[in-house]
Amino acid sequence: MRSDLTLSRQAKLQPIQTIAEQAGILPEELIPYGEHKAKIRFSLLDRLADAPQGKLVLVTAITPTPLGEGKTVTTIGLAQGLKRVGQRAMACIRQPSMGPVFGVKGGAAGGGYSQVAPMEELNLHLTGDIHAVSAAHNLAAAAIDARAFHEQKLGDAFEPKTGLPRLDIDPERIVWNRVVDINDRTLRKITIGHNAPGSSANGLERESGFDITAASELMAILALAKDLADLRRRLGRVVLAYRHSGEPVSAEDIGVAGAMAAILRDAAQPNLMQTLEGVPTLVHAGPFANIAHGNSSIIADRMALRLADVVVTEGGFGSDMGFEKACNIKARAAERHPDAAVVVATLRGLKANSDKYDLRPGQPMPEAIFAPDTAALEAGFANLEWHINNVKGYGIPTVVAINRFPQDTDEELEWLARRVQALGASVAISDAFSRGGAGAEQLAERVLQALGQPAEFKYLYDVDADLTTKLTTLAQAGYGGEGIALSQSAESDLASLTTLGFGHLPLCMAKTPASISHDPGLKGAPSGFTVPVRALRLCAGAGFIYALTGNVMTMPGLSERPAYLNIDIDDEGQIIGIDE
Amino acid sequence: MRSDLTLSRQAKLQPIQTIAEQAGILPEELIPYGEHKAKIRFSLLDRLADAPQGKLVLVTAITPTPLGEGKTVTTIGLAQGLKRVGQRAMACIRQPSMGPVFGVKGGAAGGGYSQVAPMEELNLHLTGDIHAVSAAHNLAAAAIDARAFHEQKLGDAFEPKTGLPRLDIDPERIVWNRVVDINDRTLRKITIGHNAPGSSANGLERESGFDITAASELMAILALAKDLADLRRRLGRVVLAYRHSGEPVSAEDIGVAGAMAAILRDAAQPNLMQTLEGVPTLVHAGPFANIAHGNSSIIADRMALRLADVVVTEGGFGSDMGFEKACNIKARAAERHPDAAVVVATLRGLKANSDKYDLRPGQPMPEAIFAPDTAALEAGFANLEWHINNVKGYGIPTVVAINRFPQDTDEELEWLARRVQALGASVAISDAFSRGGAGAEQLAERVLQALGQPAEFKYLYDVDADLTTKLTTLAQAGYGGEGIALSQSAESDLASLTTLGFGHLPLCMAKTPASISHDPGLKGAPSGFTVPVRALRLCAGAGFIYALTGNVMTMPGLSERPAYLNIDIDDEGQIIGIDE
Repeated sequence: MRSDLTLSRQAKLQPIQTIAEQAGILPEELIPYGEHKAKIRFSLLDRLADAPQGKLVLVTAITPTPLGEGKTVTTIGLAQGLKRVGQRAMACIRQPSMGPVFGVKGGAAGGGYSQVAPMEELNLHLTGDIHAVSAAHNLAAAAIDARAFHEQKLGDAFEPKTGLPRLDIDPERIVWNRVVDINDRTLRKITIGHNAPGSSANGLERESGFDITAASELMAILALAKDLADLRRRLGRVVLAYRHSGEPVSAEDIGVAGAMAAILRDAAQPNLMQTLEGVPTLVHAGPFANIAHGNSSIIADRMALRLADVVVTEGGFGSDMGFEKACNIKARAAERHPDAAVVVATLRGLKANSDKYDLRPGQPMPEAIFAPDTAALEAGFANLEWHINNVKGYGIPTVVAINRFPQDTDEELEWLARRVQALGASVAISDAFSRGGAGAEQLAERVLQALGQPAEFKYLYDVDADLTTKLTTLAQAGYGGEGIALSQSAESDLASLTTLGFGHLPLCMAKTPASISHDPGLKGAPSGFTVPVRALRLCAGAGFIYALTGNVMTMPGLSERPAYLNIDIDDEGQIIGIDE
Repeated sequence: MRSDLTLSRQAKLQPIQTIAEQAGILPEELIPYGEHKAKIRFSLLDRLADAPQGKLVLVTAITPTPLGEGKTVTTIGLAQGLKRVGQRAMACIRQPSMGPVFGVKGGAAGGGYSQVAPMEELNLHLTGDIHAVSAAHNLAAAAIDARAFHEQKLGDAFEPKTGLPRLDIDPERIVWNRVVDINDRTLRKITIGHNAPGSSANGLERESGFDITAASELMAILALAKDLADLRRRLGRVVLAYRHSGEPVSAEDIGVAGAMAAILRDAAQPNLMQTLEGVPTLVHAGPFANIAHGNSSIIADRMALRLADVVVTEGGFGSDMGFEKACNIKARAAERHPDAAVVVATLRGLKANSDKYDLRPGQPMPEAIFAPDTAALEAGFANLEWHINNVKGYGIPTVVAINRFPQDTDEELEWLARRVQALGASVAISDAFSRGGAGAEQLAERVLQALGQPAEFKYLYDVDADLTTKLTTLAQAGYGGEGIALSQSAESDLASLTTLGFGHLPLCMAKTPASISHDPGLKGAPSGFTVPVRALRLCAGAGFIYALTGNVMTMPGLSERPAYLNIDIDDEGQIIGIDE
């Protein structure tokens, strides 16, 4: 089969104006960025305020292998399958980060015949939203460091000279890193503000670091804001530092939130693209799925739900991660819950969950994993069963999508389908990678059946419960563990955040995606574990507290043979090698 | 008079498609980014390869005051004036950096009735070119640090494991900073790659720093490349580090140049906008005017010259800076010299050059400078005379534009015009700020007269001369000084660059713009000075060596009351306060 980039380039894409028209978007609501990308104005939401809403389908997965289960392929394939069976369908996905494109392997636009195109535009700048997040984030960083510097330098003269209140910022408690959308390990831990002896021209010296832009709280805010005014308010609430007295210093406090909103104004508009089969797709926001909630934007969902019969979106990693956060963080902020869920499973993913194979990103797959091995499948099946039950626990109808890879045998696929049916769950084999929407028609039919069933969505936890209760509920009902164990510093964080009045926020668990538990070594459906909580961190603008249960990498590095080695432009100026 | 932002917003702008059509750009050559911005495809150059070329007018100025002489206002006003007198005119200007918009004062799009609109889009992201430069630059930075790290960590195993040549990079001689388009003084001097004890997970620890993106060599390359293939070649030549043996390590050597080109591919296309009077304007690239050459792009000039009768562009700072570099660096790379020059002078600028006033950026103007003061004007006039002679020395016809400010008196303006005429120079009073193109018709007529005169352009120096000769010529014939004095380290740089085979490159003088000499304290038309050269730095991709004659600030800071305090979005999502 041809490469993703080749398929993307050979596809007869329609002008984005045609895609928009078919989706019901008026010309005056569209801001084209070239032939195949456009932003959508907020005026669409006003025009369609009273239009009926479509159904929202959330795609999640089993515990992912390092190579991925094809969740985006299934999301795009399902949307294409829904179109084929007569639905007005749209997909809403995250914008991929540019950093990994040059690091591990290019391409996060689905794949095969189920991808969003043009894939090189999706994977590079798109319309500049990630750049805007970086700029707004780094302006806030420069602003808080400069304010602390000027306050310290001018002392009592600060207020009379500037007309601004002296905030008494503790430079040791500036909690706002900088960001860059590049895999750059040397920026993880740095010292800034070095000065020549006797000079203070370069500001205050302190330890700091850079995260990749997807890890910025502003990216989570972009994804969680309901509209531009909500975005502006959330930016104002972002905590950049603490005073010596312990009180937080927000972006509003130092007067930088307005400028951040000006930088992000265009980025707040979702980006319209198309799948290879012409399904309108909104690409908007790309927050991390560990320290953030890992779902595309509420603004995009709101627009798509007024335009389409069925909107397909996805949450990052397994159902213990992106799906849980889609339900407990995003759905609360959106005041809109998913109507049905799809759990993506693969033969190789279940085998990997059997603990019989050692799969690593960037390494070739062991040949054995493609050979039929019902024992391994059976061993890994507990993981799928756990995810099905987890999703059903939220009270919404669920369909299992077995995502077919070229090497898979019919025998094993059918064995797995029967095994799922035996649980009483709905299941379809999806061949969306090789066959596009035609390979996902059965899945589309199953999803429509599910949407016809009654749903009674319920949150996992009461958001007004105290932080300890919410953490315990997540560890027990969320992951099947025994409970939590807070470190001393987590205890202190918890007390301080409660005192400051943030105890009512939902929790965002920063844990490994490689296990349902906090421990990547525990495969299948583990039990008997206690979730360690190392620290709690406030994202007052995004509106959650994230809990660190282990080391979370917020800045990747470039490997010994990074993907950028393959990337270039050819004589016609076309980008090559982005999917190699 | 109303503010720049108000004027920009109240203007009845035409759709960018209309502007393009009027300029002779075909619809298939245009890539619209919203209603009022578009990129232009390279195919235009192929189509018009044999079309007649227009005339190129280069706008420069006297030694600038901290408040600016209105050079961009004059450039835009002149283009509008040329349109009014029946010419097909276009302007080519630099893209303003976003950093200063939030630092000192928003707005670098001209002003009053001679500005490029929409000014908030020009001053913020435009179409993302500066973001792309930052990304390509920082990818190269991450790549060279990662390569040095992996080579050191793997040692002899590096080549067999990766299949890549071991370059033996000296981590102490990684010469590539990182960049960000934000005024952030705390990033000027930093230590990167801190590790936990016993770990090397965060790479190699070393001192480094960030510059503002406009100071990136890639920005100079974007401005100096003739086409995409030339851009690609120049990216390959960029020197990122040196080996322990002393040989340079280029972006091509570590295989990152292709990815940098992929990131910059769209940015290589110029951006079409319009002036308030509908003159098509190409905005493209914004290199520093001290460590780089301070002129907009060759690609934009090439396109505009095939479309228009007269193309007006500008060089940064006075004629000793941006103009000199436009002639000796840009014109050589473009193989196209300017056909005429405009020297912008102002009453307040000449008074400031009299040394009678103390003007500082961000401080209110002393009232006295607006009062008639012929003695101060006469004292400062030597500066204008020097710049007129400097420009004429390049063999091209020259017009002096006296840029009128609202406070100026007719008496003083006319005195100055007579004084210029007495030198035998062509002169016009321009009122482009208050009256737009109507205020620049006289200037337009003078410029057309100048373009009718014979020109014999000549470079200041022979590029094949050795570095010492070129430096001496710049100090003497370029600035009117006695000669140069190289520091020990500059001597060593010179020897090493000559040995490495870079002695044939043109020189880019990094000196103060506040004096014709290297010393900002020397006003008027100084003489008798010797130019100290502290160091020489290679920009092999841009194709010049820059000579540091003093401290050059490549990363601004935020002041005590930064401009971002005024910036916000209003209830309609409009950006406000960007020109306050």
